[in-house]
Amino acid sequence: MAPTAPGSAGAVTSSGPTVVVTLDGATHDPTRPLLYADDLAAVRGDGCFETVLVRGGRALKPRAHLDRLARSAAALGLPAPNDAAWWAAVQRAAMLFGERAGEEAEGALRLVYSRGRESDPTGTSYVTVAPVGPRVLTARREGVDAIIVNRGYSVDLAASAPWLLLGAKTLSYAVNMAALRYAESRGAGDVIFTSSEGRVLEGPRSTVLVARGRTLLTPPDDQGILPGTTVAAVLDAAGEKGIATEVAPLFPADLVTADGVWLVSSITLCARVRTLDGHRLPEAPMDADVRALVEHAIATVP
Amino acid sequence: MAPTAPGSAGAVTSSGPTVVVTLDGATHDPTRPLLYADDLAAVRGDGCFETVLVRGGRALKPRAHLDRLARSAAALGLPAPNDAAWWAAVQRAAMLFGERAGEEAEGALRLVYSRGRESDPTGTSYVTVAPVGPRVLTARREGVDAIIVNRGYSVDLAASAPWLLLGAKTLSYAVNMAALRYAESRGAGDVIFTSSEGRVLEGPRSTVLVARGRTLLTPPDDQGILPGTTVAAVLDAAGEKGIATEVAPLFPADLVTADGVWLVSSITLCARVRTLDGHRLPEAPMDADVRALVEHAIATVP
Repeated sequence: MAPTAPGSAGAVTSSGPTVVVTLDGATHDPTRPLLYADDLAAVRGDGCFETVLVRGGRALKPRAHLDRLARSAAALGLPAPNDAAWWAAVQRAAMLFGERAGEEAEGALRLVYSRGRESDPTGTSYVTVAPVGPRVLTARREGVDAIIVNRGYSVDLAASAPWLLLGAKTLSYAVNMAALRYAESRGAGDVIFTSSEGRVLEGPRSTVLVARGRTLLTPPDDQGILPGTTVAAVLDAAGEKGIATEVAPLFPADLVTADGVWLVSSITLCARVRTLDGHRLPEAPMDADVRALVEHAIATVP
Repeated sequence: MAPTAPGSAGAVTSSGPTVVVTLDGATHDPTRPLLYADDLAAVRGDGCFETVLVRGGRALKPRAHLDRLARSAAALGLPAPNDAAWWAAVQRAAMLFGERAGEEAEGALRLVYSRGRESDPTGTSYVTVAPVGPRVLTARREGVDAIIVNRGYSVDLAASAPWLLLGAKTLSYAVNMAALRYAESRGAGDVIFTSSEGRVLEGPRSTVLVARGRTLLTPPDDQGILPGTTVAAVLDAAGEKGIATEVAPLFPADLVTADGVWLVSSITLCARVRTLDGHRLPEAPMDADVRALVEHAIATVP
């Protein structure tokens, strides 16, 4: 797949999965089909997922991801995930990836939990691992150019309209992907969503982290954004190292005047925002600190 | 699947597809998997679809559905669908369903067009047909109890925020399904969405049609709703029969005071709304006319 191929905007991998494990522990040939034509994942985007970084044959912060999968499942009215079975499938898939790709290889592990087939809605549950793609490595190293895009929802809807599934990581990601393609069409590589009131929300696949002086800030989850597992781990690690942190509403002006803006996520980890709507953001004095916090956090958080 | 099984809220079929045809014309065993674990339909809801009624081995108003599929694909930045190949696949799938299920059987034919595999985003395109489920037949015959639910978006966003994909029939239907489950949890069977301004939009899988006296009304597409192929055909048919029609913004008060409210769609066709938020709506003097218009429309529209 060429970097400009359709779909590249949202891809965290560039080759197919090398490992496919279903929740019963069975491994599957990744070159053969797995899903039925009427799976509700495919025809309704009706399910939830997680993406987890694999290093050295080990899934990073699996507990945080399984806990979030359970919260997303609850929001969707899906049966509670079988935690022990998911845990085992994740460990097995990560180990197999390490064996096949080498201990140095980074993998993007995906947990997919759909409602099942339309004709048999008893759940479809599987884990894949694919090599981390070059877009991710470039974003980590060089940062990203981002644009601000209206997500269209009020922050109040998170509490008042549970059917909107705000804060759940569902398989219905078409809008997130469309926003990334829109950014690409504007010469940018990523997006920061705002609410209908103009508050900073999140990226389509990341959490926003901002430095103000030596304080790290991120917007509150309760305004309908996905609770970031990596940002949560970073804020914990910052506390341990005596770096001040704050969870507070942010506006675009806060980004432009910040001493550093990062998009933080499980696979890309930490991409500094270099330009926002075409404006070059100032250098980020805490960039090395933030990167070190991320590395510390993902190595230590369960 | 029992009527109360998870997922039943959104199901238009109750058994698996009996016909699966890919765009190359090949037929596939419906009891075997078709999709790869990394298909962007399943992991991102990144694609579009249509559902088409099959009667007597014939797909109804296929032209209208293929035209809408092309519009959805354009909104998603997907390559234009190969119209001739889709046409042929739809005809073939409908014919096979008629042969297998009998000429009297009604089928729900689904066109699925995703961006393809994450590792090979060159498109996944297939057609399935499954028998129409009992929920559909009950809704047609007895009508539905509906509740009004906030869709969270302003009508202005359709024009200003193309990345929100408003008016495109994408595979990311998790919110539509969640709204139907929410209705079920409130003892209702269907939903009418309103915009953040409180305008009537559409159902999660239907278009709203209202009678005011002898005039039939439906809300305008440009407020971010899916242009209904069945309602469009009904309004055309009404014009031919000298029944007045109007496309105009509607508010919940317009529904409560109407002389009939229907949810119109390709599979269920026409379900009269019996109660709205628990209030019994008055009888609909035009109910027989509307049903006759629908039957006339779907039999004659290309």
